[in-house]
Amino acid sequence: MSKQQTPHLYNQSLSLLTDFYQITMSYGYWKSGLSEKEAVFHHFFRRAPFAGGFTIACGLESLVDYLKNFKFDLSDLEYLETLKTPEGSILFEKEFLDYLEKIEFSCDIDAVPEGTVVFPYEPLVRVSGPLIQCQILESPLLNLMNFPSLIATKAARICLAAKGDEVIEFGLRRAQGIDGAMTASRSAYIGGCHSTSNVLAGKVFGIPVKGTHSHSWVMAFDEEIESFRAYAKCMPSDCVFLVDTFDTIQGVKNAIEIGHVLKAEGKSLLGIRLDSGDLSYLSIVSRKLLDDAGFKTTKIIASNQLDERIISELKRQGAQINVWGVGTNLVTGNEQPALDGVYKLSALRDKGKDWVYKIKLSEQMIKISNPGILQVRRFSKLQENVADVIYDIQHKPEKEWVSVDPFDSTKQKMIHSNLEGKDLLVPIFKNGKLVYSLPKLGCIRANTIKELEGFNAGIKRFLNAHQYSVGLEKSLYDKKIELIKKLRIKSSENIDHSGIENS
Amino acid sequence: MSKQQTPHLYNQSLSLLTDFYQITMSYGYWKSGLSEKEAVFHHFFRRAPFAGGFTIACGLESLVDYLKNFKFDLSDLEYLETLKTPEGSILFEKEFLDYLEKIEFSCDIDAVPEGTVVFPYEPLVRVSGPLIQCQILESPLLNLMNFPSLIATKAARICLAAKGDEVIEFGLRRAQGIDGAMTASRSAYIGGCHSTSNVLAGKVFGIPVKGTHSHSWVMAFDEEIESFRAYAKCMPSDCVFLVDTFDTIQGVKNAIEIGHVLKAEGKSLLGIRLDSGDLSYLSIVSRKLLDDAGFKTTKIIASNQLDERIISELKRQGAQINVWGVGTNLVTGNEQPALDGVYKLSALRDKGKDWVYKIKLSEQMIKISNPGILQVRRFSKLQENVADVIYDIQHKPEKEWVSVDPFDSTKQKMIHSNLEGKDLLVPIFKNGKLVYSLPKLGCIRANTIKELEGFNAGIKRFLNAHQYSVGLEKSLYDKKIELIKKLRIKSSENIDHSGIENS
Repeated sequence: MSKQQTPHLYNQSLSLLTDFYQITMSYGYWKSGLSEKEAVFHHFFRRAPFAGGFTIACGLESLVDYLKNFKFDLSDLEYLETLKTPEGSILFEKEFLDYLEKIEFSCDIDAVPEGTVVFPYEPLVRVSGPLIQCQILESPLLNLMNFPSLIATKAARICLAAKGDEVIEFGLRRAQGIDGAMTASRSAYIGGCHSTSNVLAGKVFGIPVKGTHSHSWVMAFDEEIESFRAYAKCMPSDCVFLVDTFDTIQGVKNAIEIGHVLKAEGKSLLGIRLDSGDLSYLSIVSRKLLDDAGFKTTKIIASNQLDERIISELKRQGAQINVWGVGTNLVTGNEQPALDGVYKLSALRDKGKDWVYKIKLSEQMIKISNPGILQVRRFSKLQENVADVIYDIQHKPEKEWVSVDPFDSTKQKMIHSNLEGKDLLVPIFKNGKLVYSLPKLGCIRANTIKELEGFNAGIKRFLNAHQYSVGLEKSLYDKKIELIKKLRIKSSENIDHSGIENS
Repeated sequence: MSKQQTPHLYNQSLSLLTDFYQITMSYGYWKSGLSEKEAVFHHFFRRAPFAGGFTIACGLESLVDYLKNFKFDLSDLEYLETLKTPEGSILFEKEFLDYLEKIEFSCDIDAVPEGTVVFPYEPLVRVSGPLIQCQILESPLLNLMNFPSLIATKAARICLAAKGDEVIEFGLRRAQGIDGAMTASRSAYIGGCHSTSNVLAGKVFGIPVKGTHSHSWVMAFDEEIESFRAYAKCMPSDCVFLVDTFDTIQGVKNAIEIGHVLKAEGKSLLGIRLDSGDLSYLSIVSRKLLDDAGFKTTKIIASNQLDERIISELKRQGAQINVWGVGTNLVTGNEQPALDGVYKLSALRDKGKDWVYKIKLSEQMIKISNPGILQVRRFSKLQENVADVIYDIQHKPEKEWVSVDPFDSTKQKMIHSNLEGKDLLVPIFKNGKLVYSLPKLGCIRANTIKELEGFNAGIKRFLNAHQYSVGLEKSLYDKKIELIKKLRIKSSENIDHSGIENS
């Protein structure tokens, strides 16, 4: 049944799904003879979303699909040919368009697998290859990685709040576009949700689909109880009644009445759904009515603007809710609808020459990127992860690992040699060839759950989450400081402005 | 060049892009013999987004494209065939799937054109036709209309804040998925933006594309000034320099130095871009440096987490910014990433019989839907719109229009006979046939601007926006109250709970 792969989403080339300046820069690189320089870029983010303590990496499969199909087609080039300068002359020379036409994706891609728990400044993806290719990929890579990671993280938080209860993703109608919905369904499942209401996500990704009826079903009949009776007749084995169309308590009583009919036929009343009002109170009253009538296994499903905080609070209040339907706030990210992922150049060289390391300067240390060719080493003890160290693969420590807090160098940690270490980024493409076997969706979801179990509960709090230790390996830290100092000297003549610039 | 139409986005049937309960209800309607009843549903929202005073309707073109292609294909039916009840038996009978296969879209659709200014409770779309079709369309319609309307509204607010300055949409990298980006680019343009950085949106929709270079261009060279020199050589007629990679003021000085080189060649320095720091201060200093060096026409472009409030505030501070690049906050809606649009059944009948009007009850008057077959009449005086009245097309007043405040019936207004009236919803599909000629994108954008000019400035405020008058035509109001009373009597036996239910 399940086709567990992302389809090539649009029936046209997506190679122009990039920011225009990537094309003008590419033209510049080409004209300046830099296009074939070897470059290294990293994708990372600076803050865990939702003021939380962790992030779930997601989106790699779509990126792989995108890269496998990367090719400027005739219509792309014809379009670029039409573009003009403000003066009205042709913007791109024909030879450049011919060059674009011949580009075959040939980069190396290393990335953390989907479902991996990641932290600020850790590279999620490393792209190495011809400068021009790395540059053009910036925008689509960010588009394809930022949003899924945001939603997988939101889903994981919601599932943590639900403490093992079933969570259904209900967001299609409020999602940001068609694949806003599709990608959210997939990411929510990876984050731990159990099912979706989105039938196309069921068909394409093999996610279990759930749902019963809405208010309009009830309104299509003269009396609510008649609508329940009719529904029970059509779907005797899958009966969940929405009870709040007119009056919730009367709705529960009507559901119970039809529940007795189902029982008499050897079927059972699977559940009732509350979609409005005081969910805490109504679920407690409904539970009592159901229990008193002998429907102790009938589930109570709740929906209506839920998120991880409301679910936590309802649980604290003793709400009798078994299944949570979460829509808008899950699929859009609500209070934070975008992950602040960025993509920065960190090294450049002429073929066969030494790497020149690169950083982007800023007044704020937290906005200065890391130089080099980066990898993340995760250290654990007795199955619990204790520290991550970002390091340069060209300068991997042979024995001793010292981790430096990137924002306070007085905080340095020696990594004990009895800790187990594991690199997070794995090869995905080598010279443009896919070398990674994409895991099945169910395996990715299981991986997320296992990953989260490997961390202290503190990072999973919603309020004042514990900050997991992520440092720079000492030689990387030293290299970064050296580069910053070199650049600061260059710009020191502007001392009159230095307090307010580049923040 | 421009292909001003939405392509059929996915290379597969989208007919399962719906919530699962739409399919189970459809099965129920079919089993209960209700599927061919005639139904009327309306799409509307309850609050203008961003605590604002207006909303721009958008998304109709995608909806038209969706409906033109609506058809369950073999793979859809094969997927539905695989679904099981919790007991493991087949969920949908084969005859039902055969029935789905034969469905040809045959509804009437009336809608407000894209770019129309709309208000809470006004129907944006009316769908009339076989109950089963109306039901299945609920989820895709909401998906395809809510998000574009949200973004067109955000864009209109941002353009109002920019007071005629050029606004470029920069959101691709942070958008929610591929068509989160594509749809946002189109909607932002409709809302008034001048251009986009998204090249695919340029190709597909014909939107002007803009952009020059990023920090990585500068970092690819040893010195910033060398990067500017190289860029000027490649793009002499389209030169905008990003000046904040290392030190903004030095960056401006470097831009000026290369500006002189351009001048000597008969070209001009089009602009500089500020992407970090104190935009107000830096733009004022940069303007002075540019002016003093004789670059009075060089534009200052600003970006970095802008939105309508920040732009307004920067303008108030006297920031010297000419062009605004707005990304994340524009394409996601930021503080409100979803429009609360809903789709409610309002009338039902057997073919040839009288309509039975329907409402969804709630403890809160604002959540009770309007019954009937609705249209919106907009009244204006000397080109300024003064009041909208929602009415039932079956009971259109012959002479006198009385508008009742739906939440305070003591507020009633007689509409003066000297006002000009105009219906907002126009026919889009008749019996499943497209009868509407889709306007070109440029015309839609012009329509938005003209529409906004037709309203008092008060509705366009960001703080405490004026609430434009939207009432129910008196006979519709009376009908609604009559229906509510009838339903309230039915549920009055639950008086012990009535204070807390159905809120």
